[in-house]
Amino acid sequence: MQASCYNALSSHTLTTMVHQPLNPSFAAEVQRSFARQSIMQLIGAELGRVEPGIVEITIPYRSELTQQNGYLHAGIVTTIADSACGYAAYSLMPAGSEVLSVEFKVNLLRPAKGDKFLARAEVIKPGKTLTVVKADVFGISGAEADQTLVASMLGTMFCISKNRE
Amino acid sequence: MQASCYNALSSHTLTTMVHQPLNPSFAAEVQRSFARQSIMQLIGAELGRVEPGIVEITIPYRSELTQQNGYLHAGIVTTIADSACGYAAYSLMPAGSEVLSVEFKVNLLRPAKGDKFLARAEVIKPGKTLTVVKADVFGISGAEADQTLVASMLGTMFCISKNRE
Amino acid sequence: MQASCYNALSSHTLTTMVHQPLNPSFAAEVQRSFARQSIMQLIGAELGRVEPGIVEITIPYRSELTQQNGYLHAGIVTTIADSACGYAAYSLMPAGSEVLSVEFKVNLLRPAKGDKFLARAEVIKPGKTLTVVKADVFGISGAEADQTLVASMLGTMFCISKNRE
Amino acid sequence: MQASCYNALSSHTLTTMVHQPLNPSFAAEVQRSFARQSIMQLIGAELGRVEPGIVEITIPYRSELTQQNGYLHAGIVTTIADSACGYAAYSLMPAGSEVLSVEFKVNLLRPAKGDKFLARAEVIKPGKTLTVVKADVFGISGAEADQTLVASMLGTMFCISKNRE
Repeated sequence: MQASCYNALSSHTLTTMVHQPLNPSFAAEVQRSFARQSIMQLIGAELGRVEPGIVEITIPYRSELTQQNGYLHAGIVTTIADSACGYAAYSLMPAGSEVLSVEFKVNLLRPAKGDKFLARAEVIKPGKTLTVVKADVFGISGAEADQTLVASMLGTMFCISKNRE
Repeated sequence: MQASCYNALSSHTLTTMVHQPLNPSFAAEVQRSFARQSIMQLIGAELGRVEPGIVEITIPYRSELTQQNGYLHAGIVTTIADSACGYAAYSLMPAGSEVLSVEFKVNLLRPAKGDKFLARAEVIKPGKTLTVVKADVFGISGAEADQTLVASMLGTMFCISKNRE
Repeated sequence: MQASCYNALSSHTLTTMVHQPLNPSFAAEVQRSFARQSIMQLIGAELGRVEPGIVEITIPYRSELTQQNGYLHAGIVTTIADSACGYAAYSLMPAGSEVLSVEFKVNLLRPAKGDKFLARAEVIKPGKTLTVVKADVFGISGAEADQTLVASMLGTMFCISKNRE
Repeated sequence: MQASCYNALSSHTLTTMVHQPLNPSFAAEVQRSFARQSIMQLIGAELGRVEPGIVEITIPYRSELTQQNGYLHAGIVTTIADSACGYAAYSLMPAGSEVLSVEFKVNLLRPAKGDKFLARAEVIKPGKTLTVVKADVFGISGAEADQTLVASMLGTMFCISKNRE
């Protein structure tokens, strides 16, 4: 990818959505639910940033999470991206809701190398029933600034509303 | 979607990729290939912005392009998004290449309403064989500023290199 | 693809789902809605088989539907696959429902060549709100028996229920 | 899903592809590579059926693999489906190849409940560079016959050929 570099000022992605949460306790709810996802402990995942419509999850590299070449397995890349997407959607749902993944698509862009990995999810379309979320997963080596995009997800999350049942 | 508004200054999407084209005639090549896509004439599509890794295609609303409720059919939304993705990828390929779509996924976010529609594609990972591209499709009503995101695509394009055959 | 041939007796795909329609007029409803999709007339599409959970749509090859190499444009392949998926889902919905596409993913497997094209959609998971559908698109040349799989779709359809609004 | 039942005789899915392997040692190669995927040991996955173009992987239910409701996490469902798809593709590649996941899309059809889970992958389009594979993941409770489809994947695998590098 020698033909590319990063530029901090680009006109066409300057706008992003700012979401207002419907549940004032959204951050505590996300933390509580995350703590109940046993798989997160097994793989060493930690919850990072939790803002309305934006959630980050990180995991350190561990050899027991790898595929045949020693890279993070695409399924584990997906695991943190999916949970980040689910909680980004959940952060905008009304109190008493539950969130489920409907579907996601993942493009594996580069070998998942790094000392640790960061999944950053962001809601692109909130909705009463369905919320569409994208996530990027970065491999991070050495300094925090050295982030390489290794995967992109585009997915749909479902809101089970307490009142609806 | 009352819970959302747009903010012009957000830290997490300020960086975008700037690509260097390998083919100095990329813009002319994109135009030439676009002119050969008969379907573009049938649906009234026009090529807009053509920059390295970024291509835009527009179509006016016409009732003959609609589904049962009078919205632009998801397949036509996909048609302009796919061509925009293909040409965004093509703009970064070496001279003499051909581009083919491998796969794409589309989330239909809102009913495709508008006086016209704009598909904006951007390469997120160029590659010798495979290039990953995302596209957003907007419905535009009245003033240009009134753009509503109606669909997002994440897809993979294939480079058939002249030298490789 | 010399390494492959078709075998009419394989144990692992012998089972398929048989669905019971909730709306006894499902076939008439599908036909009525299809007739209102103006895009279907524009591209020359015809509704074929309509059974509970299964719908087929065909189009003849026409040069005005093509991409730069003279093959059917991936967006038109998608257009008939998406409508077939939507109506396959719709055929299982209760009377008074409306159907919308949530998302789909398409793999373009081979160049879309043929005298005509057939999209065959089949529901793999019906649901009150969301129905998951797959579709295969075949290029057909000469005799009907000569069908080549050119694309596969996996998508999600949304039911807007009259009673729910 | 009361409206559906399974039928063992359906005309439209009776044909499946039979693939001829290019590498006579494909089964041993798949086993060797699987043994090197450390993540498979961590989650307790086992390789089942390995045939040309078809691979199965199973895991037992374990509470440490779950999401917040006690179901198998979608990322783990994806992990076994992705490996099964990769090895189904790999089984048809020439000796000396390596396989990488390009992308996949997963529809989560039902809560991933069961005593164990089976991912069954099948190549739908082999190719020199790209192979398209689908996988179904079943939850199995009690008797083997009680299989519930919980997820479907459609993905693309990349062949890195020894000779090509």
